Amino acid sequence: MESKKIELLETYLSLYIDHFTVLKAIQDPSSSEIVVLDVRNAPKQVKGDQIQGALAIPAKELQNHLADLDKSKTYVVYDWTEGTTLGKTALLILLSHEFKAFELAGALEGWKGMQLPVEPAK
Amino acid sequence: MESKKIELLETYLSLYIDHFTVLKAIQDPSSSEIVVLDVRNAPKQVKGDQIQGALAIPAKELQNHLADLDKSKTYVVYDWTEGTTLGKTALLILLSHEFKAFELAGALEGWKGMQLPVEPAK
Amino acid sequence: MESKKIELLETYLSLYIDHFTVLKAIQDPSSSEIVVLDVRNAPKQVKGDQIQGALAIPAKELQNHLADLDKSKTYVVYDWTEGTTLGKTALLILLSHEFKAFELAGALEGWKGMQLPVEPAK
Repeated sequence: MESKKIELLETYLSLYIDHFTVLKAIQDPSSSEIVVLDVRNAPKQVKGDQIQGALAIPAKELQNHLADLDKSKTYVVYDWTEGTTLGKTALLILLSHEFKAFELAGALEGWKGMQLPVEPAK
Repeated sequence: MESKKIELLETYLSLYIDHFTVLKAIQDPSSSEIVVLDVRNAPKQVKGDQIQGALAIPAKELQNHLADLDKSKTYVVYDWTEGTTLGKTALLILLSHEFKAFELAGALEGWKGMQLPVEPAK
Repeated sequence: MESKKIELLETYLSLYIDHFTVLKAIQDPSSSEIVVLDVRNAPKQVKGDQIQGALAIPAKELQNHLADLDKSKTYVVYDWTEGTTLGKTALLILLSHEFKAFELAGALEGWKGMQLPVEPAK
């Protein structure tokens, strides 16, 4: 059983990218391979703010926006909080279409909790 | 590794049903195959409200109530929030006994956040 | 598909230990095999309080503290809330090094919600 647990944890955790890596990428956008996607299904008034420099593509519309994305980039999706299905739904769409993609560990809640840079939602 | 990630995401997401499907079923209960189960382990005073029309069977008592359930129905379980173990515990009991069952994506928090119909907890 | 769902749920849920088992262990520390680890990556001022008797080892420092741990014990890790990656990161480190370890179901949020014993963070 321990090996099954370890395998599940390894695969599960490999879906995520940490905020330090993302923050470093955001702070040097000229050289960055990382594009942050805000996949919350909500109007911008409800969203309020978003991670600085994020592209807003709601998860429910992502399938129709794949042609606008760039396979040389790494996409980082986030939802309000971690452990929800919305980020995983977006991630599955991206990975299934052979994009490099991760979910942001801690989600928006964790990002804001650490007072990392945000901007008004778009 | 990508195929393992995709397989995990596919299986994980297949545990869930979206609120639109559940809402439609609730609004036409005469023809519905869906029964919503509130599996929170809490007295009704603590629960406060619940999804409209839900049946309250706490997860810790579910095993003893299986004989009351109907294998022709599809059961949708929910907890306070998504990503907890309680909904998954209930789901495992139901699936292991060959009931059709899903966890509600977004849980009660998401349902109320979208201002979908609730009623006093029972 | 149902068997894959059941297998995922069984493995996922086997990562967790319930608060009743942990509470019982805390209340009789002389005979207990259980050690609770607070793995939150935060200074004690931010943490505020912690589960009574917990050892504070932030997840990011856990790898460097493995030599201080005891393979005859069972370690129970917790984060602020359930369903986050931090507890799973700590759990993977412990299980990979052949420690007996679980994540606390409900995390600190659930523990405090049930008014179980806490103390000032260390």
